[in-house]
Amino acid sequence: MNALPLSEAFMLIEPGPVTLVTTAVGRRKNIMTISWTMVMDFTPKLAFVTGPWNHSYQALVETGECVIAIPSADMSETVVGIGICSGSDTDKFRKFGLTPVKAAVVKAPLIAECIANIECRVIDHVKRHDLFVLEGVRAWTAPDANKRRMFHAVGDGTFVADGRRFSHRALMSGKLPPGV
Amino acid sequence: MNALPLSEAFMLIEPGPVTLVTTAVGRRKNIMTISWTMVMDFTPKLAFVTGPWNHSYQALVETGECVIAIPSADMSETVVGIGICSGSDTDKFRKFGLTPVKAAVVKAPLIAECIANIECRVIDHVKRHDLFVLEGVRAWTAPDANKRRMFHAVGDGTFVADGRRFSHRALMSGKLPPGV
Repeated sequence: MNALPLSEAFMLIEPGPVTLVTTAVGRRKNIMTISWTMVMDFTPKLAFVTGPWNHSYQALVETGECVIAIPSADMSETVVGIGICSGSDTDKFRKFGLTPVKAAVVKAPLIAECIANIECRVIDHVKRHDLFVLEGVRAWTAPDANKRRMFHAVGDGTFVADGRRFSHRALMSGKLPPGV
Repeated sequence: MNALPLSEAFMLIEPGPVTLVTTAVGRRKNIMTISWTMVMDFTPKLAFVTGPWNHSYQALVETGECVIAIPSADMSETVVGIGICSGSDTDKFRKFGLTPVKAAVVKAPLIAECIANIECRVIDHVKRHDLFVLEGVRAWTAPDANKRRMFHAVGDGTFVADGRRFSHRALMSGKLPPGV
């Protein structure tokens, strides 16, 4: 994984990809699949929705840390598989043949096979909305990230891979944050 | 526009498209471009980030209503244009040749040219995060919605249109909400 400037990390979440979120309590690592994410600020400040119905919830509350990993479209079956089993009785890294990589700042692991990883600290938990608000503290991209595609959950069990890319950078030049 | 069951409306936001959000104060209608959105529940409960820096903010606070419209990739130049000018001095419906359509429940207008529209009520304003939490109260799709593609903001002035679609419905059958 190559270091990605933190000022560019929001660009991993803004397009709305399916994500994998890792946690670790002691040596016990877990992964959950999360599509309900958002960007809240460029810093990056990020958010996702989860609650006690997910096994990772307790780890998030206890440790206040996680990693948001971005899988590529060719990993979709793994990502769905992760979403339909529970860390309460499954070692998901082992079951799905994923490689945990030590993160720089947080105890939760990066996922080597993903396009990118964002190490995050929980900065707020808005309980009435099951919302975890996160600050990205370090970000990483895979060397081949440019050749791989994010994918998006539609919500009905179907998914859409990223397609054609196009630019309006000239038109938006006055509105882009510094450094992107 | 055809009525879309509310139970399916979250599927318009979960994939992370660029959206247009309309408001109306009296006869004064406005539109803003918003990429920082999320799904919070299937009901649908939705959220986006905005603040006083957007002219629509005041209308949202005053009226507690808006419409989230989903533009298609062929509308991207219009969507960017809407994002770089202000309703304080511009009638954006007129400037961009968009057609406001009377909504069924809220005063904010639908946008006829979009793929879909969700009429929303503000149910919470989490001020410390500039977060508006919304309840979708009515949803609509264009007759040709299936032939058109959503698109996603990367955040650096580039965009990605939806590409290949694929299904894991069989694998996910135990996890899908009723009716989708």
